[in-house]
Amino acid sequence: MPNTIISGKHFIGGQRIASGTAELASWRADNDRPTGYHFYQASGAETAAAAEAAANAFNAYSQTSSEQRAAFLCAIADEIDALAEPFFNFVMQETALSLARLQGERARTSGQLRLFAELLRRGDVHGVRIDCALPDRTPLPRPDLRQYRTALGPVAVFGASNFPLAFSTAGGDTAAALAAGCPVVFKAHSGHMITAELTAQAIERAVQQQQMPAGVFNMIFGARIGAELVQHPAIQAVGFTGSLQGGRALFDLAMRRPQPIPVFAEMSSINPVVIMPQALAQRGPSIAQELVASFTLGCGQFCTKPGLIIGIRSPAFNQLIDDLKHSVNAATPQHMLNAGTLANYHHGLQALAQHPGLEHLAGNLEPQPHLATPQLYLADSQLLFNQDALLQEEVFGPVAIVITVEDQRQLLAALEHLQGQLTATLLAEPSDMAASAELLPLLTRKAGRVLFNGYPTGVEVCDAMVHGGPYPATSDARGTSVGTLAIERFLRPVCLQNAPAALLPAALQDSNPLNLLRLVNGTYTRASLEGASYGNRQI
Amino acid sequence: MPNTIISGKHFIGGQRIASGTAELASWRADNDRPTGYHFYQASGAETAAAAEAAANAFNAYSQTSSEQRAAFLCAIADEIDALAEPFFNFVMQETALSLARLQGERARTSGQLRLFAELLRRGDVHGVRIDCALPDRTPLPRPDLRQYRTALGPVAVFGASNFPLAFSTAGGDTAAALAAGCPVVFKAHSGHMITAELTAQAIERAVQQQQMPAGVFNMIFGARIGAELVQHPAIQAVGFTGSLQGGRALFDLAMRRPQPIPVFAEMSSINPVVIMPQALAQRGPSIAQELVASFTLGCGQFCTKPGLIIGIRSPAFNQLIDDLKHSVNAATPQHMLNAGTLANYHHGLQALAQHPGLEHLAGNLEPQPHLATPQLYLADSQLLFNQDALLQEEVFGPVAIVITVEDQRQLLAALEHLQGQLTATLLAEPSDMAASAELLPLLTRKAGRVLFNGYPTGVEVCDAMVHGGPYPATSDARGTSVGTLAIERFLRPVCLQNAPAALLPAALQDSNPLNLLRLVNGTYTRASLEGASYGNRQI
Repeated sequence: MPNTIISGKHFIGGQRIASGTAELASWRADNDRPTGYHFYQASGAETAAAAEAAANAFNAYSQTSSEQRAAFLCAIADEIDALAEPFFNFVMQETALSLARLQGERARTSGQLRLFAELLRRGDVHGVRIDCALPDRTPLPRPDLRQYRTALGPVAVFGASNFPLAFSTAGGDTAAALAAGCPVVFKAHSGHMITAELTAQAIERAVQQQQMPAGVFNMIFGARIGAELVQHPAIQAVGFTGSLQGGRALFDLAMRRPQPIPVFAEMSSINPVVIMPQALAQRGPSIAQELVASFTLGCGQFCTKPGLIIGIRSPAFNQLIDDLKHSVNAATPQHMLNAGTLANYHHGLQALAQHPGLEHLAGNLEPQPHLATPQLYLADSQLLFNQDALLQEEVFGPVAIVITVEDQRQLLAALEHLQGQLTATLLAEPSDMAASAELLPLLTRKAGRVLFNGYPTGVEVCDAMVHGGPYPATSDARGTSVGTLAIERFLRPVCLQNAPAALLPAALQDSNPLNLLRLVNGTYTRASLEGASYGNRQI
Repeated sequence: MPNTIISGKHFIGGQRIASGTAELASWRADNDRPTGYHFYQASGAETAAAAEAAANAFNAYSQTSSEQRAAFLCAIADEIDALAEPFFNFVMQETALSLARLQGERARTSGQLRLFAELLRRGDVHGVRIDCALPDRTPLPRPDLRQYRTALGPVAVFGASNFPLAFSTAGGDTAAALAAGCPVVFKAHSGHMITAELTAQAIERAVQQQQMPAGVFNMIFGARIGAELVQHPAIQAVGFTGSLQGGRALFDLAMRRPQPIPVFAEMSSINPVVIMPQALAQRGPSIAQELVASFTLGCGQFCTKPGLIIGIRSPAFNQLIDDLKHSVNAATPQHMLNAGTLANYHHGLQALAQHPGLEHLAGNLEPQPHLATPQLYLADSQLLFNQDALLQEEVFGPVAIVITVEDQRQLLAALEHLQGQLTATLLAEPSDMAASAELLPLLTRKAGRVLFNGYPTGVEVCDAMVHGGPYPATSDARGTSVGTLAIERFLRPVCLQNAPAALLPAALQDSNPLNLLRLVNGTYTRASLEGASYGNRQI
């Protein structure tokens, strides 16, 4: 980036636009001082213009071929990969995340763009189903019916505070929407606006290089504009990663529109970890170390941070609690993403401290300026049975709560009282198998991902990942915001009946020119239909 | 049915339950007189009991194998097919539909149950994606990740007035939910309660024969209980076919729950038919006949009734309008489904008659006792451009509105102003191709199904069908309520990470015992994973 210019203006329909004065300040995460850069607050008219720019791009962009969109995604990935030292310096200033973490996150971001490109080239996006005509069927002939999937419409994306790259401007929701053929309006997160601007510039370079329609990607800065954005009639779906309060507010607005639209909000999860007796017996000390490493990783700022640790009462579990205490007391304070996140963490700890059913086990409670200190609490298992709200609420930051239950029966009951989760984890040995088998159906009912002998903070970007789960983990358990299945949120099926061959999209043509795996008359095949008996489709 | 007993009681958890007195009367459709049978109004407690019975059945039923569910669906189909003359006599009394129509609808109902059984046996329900472990990957190893789809939870189904069999008790939504592994609570339609009871008895016989859990299917009778049903915490999704007003009201209630749930409501569509100039020139007279046959078929009581006929001004289009008038004036009055439907039809006609932008073209306006008379109106094209609400509203019954536009440009603009539709139809000749090509992307944006040279009232039950579409056709354009894709509404993805082999469901096992087509490391295959290098998944 030899000519880095940070103008603070919105990205609308391929133009940089702003009115008024740039009054939104960007802040350093480590000391809460201004970075010196300022951004414009989007007006209602600018928010509407961004939505309309996306709508104007929709016809052309949704008709691009899978290969064109794949090339576009790869071009964005290349531009992201080309971002150099000055970029990382800005991101570090805005988020206090380490260079190593940010380099890893950048690789994840470009990697997931390329994974969606692979999916497009594999042809999964089309979802083709063909039922050939049966002109001689009695009592009625069957027409020729061909189903494919098409883009839903412009998508509003709200980025996360905790992944300035992978869940933000060019992050998973943007990648999935663009792969589906949906233009995007991205609402930049106030916590990393320089990062957002530099990433949006990278996307704009890819838009120009690939000659994509202006308006395929738009970005606006500002507070309180999310509500207007999701209510704009041009917006047809919403992707969101953030708090339960924020996600639910946008969900409610979207559902009250004259035309309601789907909202995929990833919100709140406490990610229970259940430690089975034999695992505890065989590797208690290492479990304690690994657990503390997992819930303090990245200062506990992960959606999948294990916030609840559950075990059955025993001397070994008491020993584990002691080991956890030692590790937590030895853990170093870390910078959080911004002053607001740190204040929320302290607010969350205060609520835990004031609750009569919770006991503080470990962690320095002396406030450290600009730093978050890891903490450990013990909760009475009755709180789960009483569905105490506090125990179900995510506290974002390096804190976990331990719960002791009396036996397997109480363990099942305790888990039954949990709300929906992104993840649930079992630490178990083969000799715990019978008990684990009893827990598994319950855990799959509660969570989008069930892990064995691992920690939930790593979320692999691949075909099989589910980063979703029942409410309040997300607003719709049928979606995932990580992995290739994420694209399905932004597609809808369309059926063409007796369409003339000349008007069929490539995916539906008899000769199968895209070599897709298609469901034809109830059988999956890549074969052409030519020569097959499929009746008369003359226009 | 040698021992037909119609008790009027609810079906809750395998029991027949009712309190109070049976005060809901069943009425004859042809003369609005009582059939002599009465049904109980479900109390709040009974509505809750039905939801809880479904929840109690969920664990066992959702864990049944695909083969077990397929056998169950086939057993229901067999019981439905065994319903004999007394059953049809009751359905005819309640709906005034002809025996031939009802026999066809019965075949459709059992046929779609068997089609879902086929889908289960084909293995599509599982949606398996496997990413094998990469233990040696740097910087971080990849765990073993296996995704499948599991049942969402108990589903509340609201049947349609106009399909007493195929969209009701054992209809498409029930079949899709049961196929997905979701227990059902069916709210019987007040228009055909005897039909509902006899169908539910058939389902109960299949439940017993196949030893399915009590509570896998429940049915309640009553007015105003739908609101309580969709708000019950045990209910996890809703399938609905009916009016925009009714569907939207249930949707709003479901979205305002503490835990919102997906609602698939099929509501309102006017199903535009566009007649292109060359088609008009070549076969105007037969188009006129076919169109009138289509919008008066079944007394116009189809969700896909073509309610809007659009053509470009020409002498040939004027001739078509004349031909339509003759056919409509010659069409015979028919019985509607019930007195309420007839009253709504007359109410809808009144609104059309009173609108200054509409002109009555044909149809006897003299009210006929208990009968609906086909009607034809002409609307000013400006009404579409002004998005006049009346023109966008479905009038259920044998009426259509003709609109003349000036040219292709105005045709595109008129269609652009339409709301979402279940279907859009183009009547076109090869010489209309260029104009048709211009219309197609617009029509696919507006409708779930786009037809060429056919009429939308036939909805084939197959893999490729889409009976859905953008709002207000449905509440979620991503679903269909006809065809095998309908099952996807009631499934959610789950990912198992590093699960021990002994705990993997059959669909996810290395040996692929169900012979499923699975996405393994980015490739679709039915191969076993055994012998493949996929890392260490020891518990």
